[in-house]
Amino acid sequence: MKFGTAIGIVISIVGIAIGATMEGTNVMVVLNIPAISIVLIGTLGATIAACGLEAHIRLPAIYKKAILPDDLDLPGRVKELVGFAEQARRDGLLALDEAVGSISDPFTRKGIQLVVDGTDPDLVAAVLDAENEAMRKRHAAARNPFMQAGALAPTMGIIGTVFGLVNVMNNLNQPSTLGPLIAAAFLATLMGVGSANIVFLPMANRLKELSEAELHFREMTLEGVLAIQAGDNPRVVEEKLMAYVSPKDRPTEADKGSSAPAEKQAA
Amino acid sequence: MKFGTAIGIVISIVGIAIGATMEGTNVMVVLNIPAISIVLIGTLGATIAACGLEAHIRLPAIYKKAILPDDLDLPGRVKELVGFAEQARRDGLLALDEAVGSISDPFTRKGIQLVVDGTDPDLVAAVLDAENEAMRKRHAAARNPFMQAGALAPTMGIIGTVFGLVNVMNNLNQPSTLGPLIAAAFLATLMGVGSANIVFLPMANRLKELSEAELHFREMTLEGVLAIQAGDNPRVVEEKLMAYVSPKDRPTEADKGSSAPAEKQAA
Amino acid sequence: MKFGTAIGIVISIVGIAIGATMEGTNVMVVLNIPAISIVLIGTLGATIAACGLEAHIRLPAIYKKAILPDDLDLPGRVKELVGFAEQARRDGLLALDEAVGSISDPFTRKGIQLVVDGTDPDLVAAVLDAENEAMRKRHAAARNPFMQAGALAPTMGIIGTVFGLVNVMNNLNQPSTLGPLIAAAFLATLMGVGSANIVFLPMANRLKELSEAELHFREMTLEGVLAIQAGDNPRVVEEKLMAYVSPKDRPTEADKGSSAPAEKQAA
Amino acid sequence: MKFGTAIGIVISIVGIAIGATMEGTNVMVVLNIPAISIVLIGTLGATIAACGLEAHIRLPAIYKKAILPDDLDLPGRVKELVGFAEQARRDGLLALDEAVGSISDPFTRKGIQLVVDGTDPDLVAAVLDAENEAMRKRHAAARNPFMQAGALAPTMGIIGTVFGLVNVMNNLNQPSTLGPLIAAAFLATLMGVGSANIVFLPMANRLKELSEAELHFREMTLEGVLAIQAGDNPRVVEEKLMAYVSPKDRPTEADKGSSAPAEKQAA
Amino acid sequence: MKFGTAIGIVISIVGIAIGATMEGTNVMVVLNIPAISIVLIGTLGATIAACGLEAHIRLPAIYKKAILPDDLDLPGRVKELVGFAEQARRDGLLALDEAVGSISDPFTRKGIQLVVDGTDPDLVAAVLDAENEAMRKRHAAARNPFMQAGALAPTMGIIGTVFGLVNVMNNLNQPSTLGPLIAAAFLATLMGVGSANIVFLPMANRLKELSEAELHFREMTLEGVLAIQAGDNPRVVEEKLMAYVSPKDRPTEADKGSSAPAEKQAA
Repeated sequence: MKFGTAIGIVISIVGIAIGATMEGTNVMVVLNIPAISIVLIGTLGATIAACGLEAHIRLPAIYKKAILPDDLDLPGRVKELVGFAEQARRDGLLALDEAVGSISDPFTRKGIQLVVDGTDPDLVAAVLDAENEAMRKRHAAARNPFMQAGALAPTMGIIGTVFGLVNVMNNLNQPSTLGPLIAAAFLATLMGVGSANIVFLPMANRLKELSEAELHFREMTLEGVLAIQAGDNPRVVEEKLMAYVSPKDRPTEADKGSSAPAEKQAA
Repeated sequence: MKFGTAIGIVISIVGIAIGATMEGTNVMVVLNIPAISIVLIGTLGATIAACGLEAHIRLPAIYKKAILPDDLDLPGRVKELVGFAEQARRDGLLALDEAVGSISDPFTRKGIQLVVDGTDPDLVAAVLDAENEAMRKRHAAARNPFMQAGALAPTMGIIGTVFGLVNVMNNLNQPSTLGPLIAAAFLATLMGVGSANIVFLPMANRLKELSEAELHFREMTLEGVLAIQAGDNPRVVEEKLMAYVSPKDRPTEADKGSSAPAEKQAA
Repeated sequence: MKFGTAIGIVISIVGIAIGATMEGTNVMVVLNIPAISIVLIGTLGATIAACGLEAHIRLPAIYKKAILPDDLDLPGRVKELVGFAEQARRDGLLALDEAVGSISDPFTRKGIQLVVDGTDPDLVAAVLDAENEAMRKRHAAARNPFMQAGALAPTMGIIGTVFGLVNVMNNLNQPSTLGPLIAAAFLATLMGVGSANIVFLPMANRLKELSEAELHFREMTLEGVLAIQAGDNPRVVEEKLMAYVSPKDRPTEADKGSSAPAEKQAA
Repeated sequence: MKFGTAIGIVISIVGIAIGATMEGTNVMVVLNIPAISIVLIGTLGATIAACGLEAHIRLPAIYKKAILPDDLDLPGRVKELVGFAEQARRDGLLALDEAVGSISDPFTRKGIQLVVDGTDPDLVAAVLDAENEAMRKRHAAARNPFMQAGALAPTMGIIGTVFGLVNVMNNLNQPSTLGPLIAAAFLATLMGVGSANIVFLPMANRLKELSEAELHFREMTLEGVLAIQAGDNPRVVEEKLMAYVSPKDRPTEADKGSSAPAEKQAA
Repeated sequence: MKFGTAIGIVISIVGIAIGATMEGTNVMVVLNIPAISIVLIGTLGATIAACGLEAHIRLPAIYKKAILPDDLDLPGRVKELVGFAEQARRDGLLALDEAVGSISDPFTRKGIQLVVDGTDPDLVAAVLDAENEAMRKRHAAARNPFMQAGALAPTMGIIGTVFGLVNVMNNLNQPSTLGPLIAAAFLATLMGVGSANIVFLPMANRLKELSEAELHFREMTLEGVLAIQAGDNPRVVEEKLMAYVSPKDRPTEADKGSSAPAEKQAA
């Protein structure tokens, strides 16, 4: 399921290629060097101007993240946090100190560490909120080149096509060459509209959704950390955190069988 | 009244088909395999890239929901909540415990259950708010493929048409074939603009309105649950909740005849 | 002044008709049945799909409201509320009980009734706010068909024109019929762009402005009701409410001559 | 500097006229009565339908305001308010009573009057905020005809051009007249795009910036009035209000020479 | 890395020029005086009308800032602020008085000065917030000419092209001149779309990102100043401020080696 972006781009290209071939066009014509130079290099330059060089050096990592996103296991995180809540209620907050080292997620670890250190709850919330807000800004900056490219590539395609038509118009006296020249001019439009709609805009949206999912995941974690610090009843903590989980992913009563006694003990 | 979306799509297609036939066009030409492949498969692939595979596996259920939405009976819910408010004032909050099992709506049941459990009012509001916010995000994610498709399909149509025109331009020396080739090229534009404006965009808007109506319904329920917990006068609870109901759906004094005495008793 | 919408639509149509006639076009050609069927029925179907049937059954009432809006007399409402403030300060809040029946505006009546009933101020504000928020949502839903139609009609026009051009392209071998066929194809574009820009979009904006004016009116009323309940000095109430009135509609000192003594008495 | 809008419109028209003349076009052709009737009267009617008649009766005053905006002297206002703060600290708030009459700006006067009257600080803030919010809404309504016209005029131009092309298509059998007819049809597009981009949209943006500048000015004044009422140290008042002034407009230490001793006295 | 904007614009122009040359067009044709006059002078006039003259006098400085942005050293600022926090905890807030003069950043200096002066924490936050909000508004006003130009230049290009086509249509009887005339008409479109997409829109986005980065930098500084005033533990201050720093720019434990003992002392 995680490969959606790669699969989708392939489906889209195959669907268009099949249709175009049935129309009688040789789809390989789109691999036209002038069109690629105008649209892809022109767009790359404009996005560098718009977003800076640093954002582009990170692009390969961003592409990889969109195509192979991290797995966000909400029910697992709920279970982990409820476990800490039970332990804290049973043995006190300081008992979490030894658990901190074994937490793999840095955000959860930072939150629990702050709690163990006896930091003021408002300050714990402020520090973790600042982490999330900074991540949200970093993500927005990271996907901005894709959004810019999605808006710029079609107009770069128009620039390429108009350049081609200017050439056509200056050769009106050689009618036999007009058809192929106009066809070539159109290839820049194809490259511009195609790259924007098959790659840049879907990638930008995908990155936005992944960012929102990660923020949602972290907001749940933040709620959980604060509830642990407040010493809330683990059953209430679970109720609260489960609200963040899609109903279809919530464990049924049967699934929870094993943890229920522990909850009762803790309460 | 609930079938609006299906009826609307049929009216739109019939209106366009009649007009096009009167213009002299055989409307069946739009069922053109290359155009369908380029526009519909191309768009599907791009929306999968943009929104992930999971969102597309749920699509049949989403289509069904848009065409056959749940009925949101606001006055009925007000009456149910006012009934609980009366019972709680008469017999105490714990008296609602036996009623919980008979509540059909899971959100109302969760709210009343939290109240019966003696959960802190702020926590009740926080848990139910988190449920609503999570639902709002899920709904937004569920309709996003339609919004993406509404934006992408017309440009996929342009891709199909430009491919066709590239083909035309390379065949300028056979003028007799030009007309049908250009006509075929235009079919992709028709498919792209038509599918976006008759199906994808109206569906996206419909799903947005249904989501907002459900959130409005739940916000009213949340207000009611908190008012019950606060032990508000049932008449005031009704006044407050009725503000969420459209004036034309509010029961007239005559309709309320039977419940009025109960209210007076309770007050 | 209230007939602005009807007058504006007439001016727009007359201006366009005069210009088109001077260009040499017979403007009656726009009353083209295929174009009307494709654009107006096609758009109607799509807006039904987007907004549901109920919203369309209310459309005649909405059109009437846009063309003949209610009169919002802000200075009159200020005077009415200041009068209540004076009476309440002189004779107590309960003295307003007999005035309630004579208040013609249901929102003001509901507010004063709640005050007379001794409802908690926060609850008065919450109930009236919920009324306003629900009205805002109802208004937004009511004008949405116009916004959708404004966005959809031009593209329906393009669908009609492309259908016409497909027909043209399949008849390239009868050159003498091409001109009239292309002309007919363009009529759908005219109908789509014209209906959107002369009727749908201006109506949508007009309804938005009327809704905002009504909300502004109600917010002022809400402020006044809360100030009456708080027992504020009537002169301060007037000062506060007059801030909601456009400076040019504020009564001059001379206009206020008669009410000034009453104010002094009350203070 | 204040004449920016008029100067900008003249520069834009001159630049276009020079370019078009060099291309070989007689720019006077744009003064085409049918195009003007369709675009300008058509747009005027649609904006009347969208925004009401009243908003259009005020248009000459709005044009004048955009072309000759009021001068907003932020450092001068800071100095005036700091002077009041010093006087209030030295002689008490009531000492401002005699100064009230000499304040030229109605908003400042209203604020200081409320303070002198001993109005509650929260109420002073509420009344002045309501004034600002009402002004913001009035400004938004006043510039809306320009925003609407900016969006509608280009499409009115398209309507004019399509009407012209319909005429052209019905005269295909008289080829010698086609060129001038098509040229005439394009004039409506020129009038629509030109009026929107040279007049309507820049005017709408200019009015928005002027409105924001005036709100910024008033927010600073509001802060100052509240600080005077709170009896803040005049030096702190100045520090706070100077934050609203652009650094390059802030007086240097040298400029402040004369007022510094007064500050020290007051402190 | 700082030269991203200049490098990007060059890459974009080179990519387009190479592609256009390969298509057979002489790219120097875009340096067409009529097109430049219509598009660049027409756009400049319209942005002056939209944004005022003052905003344009500052343009050279703005261009320079986009191409050579200030360096924002977040970890360095964190270190500086943590240093002040240590000093304040060790020697008291007044001990910072002598450090104030040596602070190079005016915003940090103003904040620390207010703290040293014993200003109320809420007032410190209010003054610094007002500074930031005023800077945000100034930045938005400064980049608005670029956003306006990005929207207006393509339509100015259309105006130029339509003027050219009007000229073409009036010369249909001299077919041999048509090609070059149409080609010349297209140059205005190229100039309009090109200048908007390669210069104006990327510049507007770049300025927006730089503004957001500076605000982020200042928000961190504001947090730090308030934490110093509150006497927070320097280690907690560092933890809080580091949340604003991108993880990859955070110093590793090794980097912090030297400052750690100082922290322990201070705590």
